[in-house]
Amino acid sequence: MRRGSNQLRLADFNQAVVLDVLRRSPGASRADLRRESGLSPQTISNITRRLIDDGLIRETEPAGSARGRPSIPLVVDRDGAFSVGVHIDPARLTTVLLDLDGQVRLRRQERTPQATNPPEVTALIAATADAVIREAGVDRDRVLGLGIAAPGPLDVHAGVIVDPPQLPNWRNVRLRADLHHATGLPVLLDKDVTAAATAELRSSKAPANAFVFLYLGSGVGASVVVDNQVLRGVTNNIGEVGDLIVDPEAEQLEWAGRRGGLAAACVPEALVIQAARLGLVPLPDLSDYVAIDDACTALCEQAAGGNSGATWILDRAARRVAVGLGVLVNLLDVPRVVLGGPLWNRLAQAFLPVLTELVAGELVVARPALVVEGSAIGEHVAAQGAAELVMDHFLAPRAAALLVGES
Amino acid sequence: MRRGSNQLRLADFNQAVVLDVLRRSPGASRADLRRESGLSPQTISNITRRLIDDGLIRETEPAGSARGRPSIPLVVDRDGAFSVGVHIDPARLTTVLLDLDGQVRLRRQERTPQATNPPEVTALIAATADAVIREAGVDRDRVLGLGIAAPGPLDVHAGVIVDPPQLPNWRNVRLRADLHHATGLPVLLDKDVTAAATAELRSSKAPANAFVFLYLGSGVGASVVVDNQVLRGVTNNIGEVGDLIVDPEAEQLEWAGRRGGLAAACVPEALVIQAARLGLVPLPDLSDYVAIDDACTALCEQAAGGNSGATWILDRAARRVAVGLGVLVNLLDVPRVVLGGPLWNRLAQAFLPVLTELVAGELVVARPALVVEGSAIGEHVAAQGAAELVMDHFLAPRAAALLVGES
Repeated sequence: MRRGSNQLRLADFNQAVVLDVLRRSPGASRADLRRESGLSPQTISNITRRLIDDGLIRETEPAGSARGRPSIPLVVDRDGAFSVGVHIDPARLTTVLLDLDGQVRLRRQERTPQATNPPEVTALIAATADAVIREAGVDRDRVLGLGIAAPGPLDVHAGVIVDPPQLPNWRNVRLRADLHHATGLPVLLDKDVTAAATAELRSSKAPANAFVFLYLGSGVGASVVVDNQVLRGVTNNIGEVGDLIVDPEAEQLEWAGRRGGLAAACVPEALVIQAARLGLVPLPDLSDYVAIDDACTALCEQAAGGNSGATWILDRAARRVAVGLGVLVNLLDVPRVVLGGPLWNRLAQAFLPVLTELVAGELVVARPALVVEGSAIGEHVAAQGAAELVMDHFLAPRAAALLVGES
Repeated sequence: MRRGSNQLRLADFNQAVVLDVLRRSPGASRADLRRESGLSPQTISNITRRLIDDGLIRETEPAGSARGRPSIPLVVDRDGAFSVGVHIDPARLTTVLLDLDGQVRLRRQERTPQATNPPEVTALIAATADAVIREAGVDRDRVLGLGIAAPGPLDVHAGVIVDPPQLPNWRNVRLRADLHHATGLPVLLDKDVTAAATAELRSSKAPANAFVFLYLGSGVGASVVVDNQVLRGVTNNIGEVGDLIVDPEAEQLEWAGRRGGLAAACVPEALVIQAARLGLVPLPDLSDYVAIDDACTALCEQAAGGNSGATWILDRAARRVAVGLGVLVNLLDVPRVVLGGPLWNRLAQAFLPVLTELVAGELVVARPALVVEGSAIGEHVAAQGAAELVMDHFLAPRAAALLVGES
């Protein structure tokens, strides 16, 4: 069993406040920390000494100071703590190792095992987390925990994957407990869209962030950021938008999703059914998300290569997604829409040039400044967000989510 | 020109903090106020003396105390300050007078003038506000201001009604300035759904409120409350849900709204077109919102009387509204939906018995505890909310909206 959080003495609230200031304002001096935190000079002195001793922060060279005693800038030590983030998409398993400075040290993507027993996926995640930590050469005692981003519905408090339509046979899987048992690490489970929005928010320098994040992977979901806060929903299951009707004239596809819904408009399964109807790709085994994902890649490559049928499918998908985004912008009055997730890179070429104008055409209130853009982070946004949620849990003054296995 | 806010000396932040505590915790003692506010005994003593002198709070009898000097409970003086709230629905103009204790002293509803010149409505609002203040016999110097709830899009910062589809010919009307000129009162303008959610939130005793408010009037709109905060949107124009598709099979109506949209499902104009098609009511002049409203009342009365055609129309409307509510609950993960607005009372009989189950059928995540209910306040919810926003502006430590005419 690991003892990271004991060793790092992370339980102290004031220490968390100080570390939080340094994460947000690198180079702050002890005097800056006093001003920002409201803590006494003696407390700041004690905490910074302890953080330096623990290797979580370090002193740097002061800039040339004209007179008086220069104040010493403090920064977090990027090697002081790490977290592992894993994003379970039914087709792709993405893993990142995040350092205390918020940088991704190592990133991996592999195919999600399609065997219908969750233990196999659990074992793979545990092995991958171990491999990533080993490969990066970091001290395992400095790994705070493992964050998992997964499709909903989830029971975040219990750490249980309830019954996601996108993960067949994952019914009431106690993923958090299982992974804690397998890795010895504290484990956090949260929804894919919540993790993605968390990472996207962190990457933005805007003073008051408000945006909708549209997650595109094997499934589709949305998350909402208002006033720099990621909305989670009362059951932590925000963002189920697959059933939102975006095309009343849409054809009935041979699948379970709602006819004309946002999922039918843009998830790989629906897109490859549409492509197979036009003879563009062979219809894959629809119980195999990896096969679906590969067929979807083939469709997107055909569109990129100028195939008219493939282009028509993706153009139509863009129009339908724009209707859905219009609903979200009209409802939530946000100035920005961000798209991301494992599917996004493949759709961006067809979507980005047309999406802003298509969404604008859906709006009740004219928004000339509306921004529609791809994630600043990329395909691993949800994995990175899961790792950031772990960091926040241990290092931010207010815990953002629940873990098991804290020692 | 009125001088209320000068006379009442409301500018002081610490005083606002104290008054805010007393509005939320009637009967608090000076010691309680010190604990709650963190202010010094001397400051509390000065502020409470000033508030008593100004007639905003008063001392009450202490409950029997066994020993020692009893602490004197303080309460707000309900006659200490008032605000007027007006809700402009295209068919109904609702006015309330709110006292400092949050009670509605007087309430009025009349038909909105259908003349296409906004000055007529402005004049009527000014006259009604004056009449309500006179009729209630309150000191006009104690009226803090006038709050207006109106359909969007609005420019809340400029106090301008931009171009609401539901208010023909109201294009860039400087309502706030016009009403300030006409009444001499400070005036606040905000969106109908935002005002409605504000009043509904205030009426709820739940510790952490999260709900969607569906506003049903001449138009349809939504507002969102998360963690006891009314979301406003980045341009204060939250909640445009009329174009949300709720019935892909819906017929095309002879009007401008989107086929199959939520507005086409439930606004009076769409309902009376549907009723007229069945010969239930004569088709009214569709540029006359009062005539539409009357025809809609006739339709609802027929349904209440058992007319099968009218019942069919309202049952279908309930099913369509449930699809829209399902989208909102799936997206926002709220435990509660509240319906209200000037149309709600007429629809409640047909909607309430079926809506919870219909919405449950739309949900991706099962929510056995989901509550779907009518407003606790009633038809005047938006007017009351507008009056509360004025109170908050002057009395709460943080201002909630902008006014002109503060002296």
